[in-house]
Amino acid sequence: MKYCSQCGAKVELRIPEGDTLPRYVCNACRTIHYSNPKLVVGCIPEWEDKILLCKRAIEPRQGLWTLPAGFLENDETTVEGAARETFEETLSKVEVTDLYALFNLPHINQVYVMFRGNLLGLDFGPTPESEVVELYVEKDIPWDRIAFPVIEQTLKLYFQDKNRGEFSIHTGDIVRLPGNGRKYKVKLHSNR
Amino acid sequence: MKYCSQCGAKVELRIPEGDTLPRYVCNACRTIHYSNPKLVVGCIPEWEDKILLCKRAIEPRQGLWTLPAGFLENDETTVEGAARETFEETLSKVEVTDLYALFNLPHINQVYVMFRGNLLGLDFGPTPESEVVELYVEKDIPWDRIAFPVIEQTLKLYFQDKNRGEFSIHTGDIVRLPGNGRKYKVKLHSNR
Repeated sequence: MKYCSQCGAKVELRIPEGDTLPRYVCNACRTIHYSNPKLVVGCIPEWEDKILLCKRAIEPRQGLWTLPAGFLENDETTVEGAARETFEETLSKVEVTDLYALFNLPHINQVYVMFRGNLLGLDFGPTPESEVVELYVEKDIPWDRIAFPVIEQTLKLYFQDKNRGEFSIHTGDIVRLPGNGRKYKVKLHSNR
Repeated sequence: MKYCSQCGAKVELRIPEGDTLPRYVCNACRTIHYSNPKLVVGCIPEWEDKILLCKRAIEPRQGLWTLPAGFLENDETTVEGAARETFEETLSKVEVTDLYALFNLPHINQVYVMFRGNLLGLDFGPTPESEVVELYVEKDIPWDRIAFPVIEQTLKLYFQDKNRGEFSIHTGDIVRLPGNGRKYKVKLHSNR
């Protein structure tokens, strides 16, 4: 941020009075501009013993597989956002059912909230964001071609829970390690 | 938003190509400015059969009671944010334990994520945000003087769960009804 979005003057990065963190502050109109993490909402769309995956048509991670998920928009709930993203990325309609996982990705200022959902039919197909949309049973999941660690972790937990016959709600942190490699530390919280 | 925070030119509200919602777009430098809901993280600090409440020293809802909660900051996890807010508003140290509730407040573009936490000691006291900080047993909770519906709902569920001897994770929507009154509709989701 370089200019005040309210009055167009140059902003300054400093700790406002009574605050503890640096913010972009406008010395002309006195607006303090806050920047906060974003919520990504997504869904595991279920059909019998299968789930719906998308092969990404766009960067980042084009050509790799993911679950439908995206930024929560203003004026919508997390459940509505998860259903909207599922439709936008797969053309499928889902009834979003249970909260399934909450993951913190503090290195990119994102929090993922993932739900489970019932596919309401088999009308799905490619979209501008997904070049292929397909149902997968567990043994066919392309584990070495999953786009994002948070999605890989969600899928792992999902099939573990499914195989033991009981779903619980999972929370944890997924943090990228320093360096050039795509290496991540996954820390699951144990709810009592 | 009136001016581009990147280049200082005037912005225009329109639907960008390939998008479905209006955004503030800069026709000079081509930046698209997104606005998304914010995450509020908070804690129910527990000590024996009591929980810690704060009497608000500032607006909104000055003089009414709440649980420690506030906006998640960049570079922190929801658990870290809940502990930080608890310290800032009560001077107490907590070990944040379980995820307890996720509430959508779409009318103000907020999502609340509330945790339970163990108070690590009895060092707590007033702060710039809380004129009184006090431990409460259930029968003494000032139910008619709770600051926010989302906090009232969280406390209700908490004592219901506590009295039946089992805590679960709750999700739901709390939406302000049209009109001048402070009237809200609470819709709880039932996880399977």
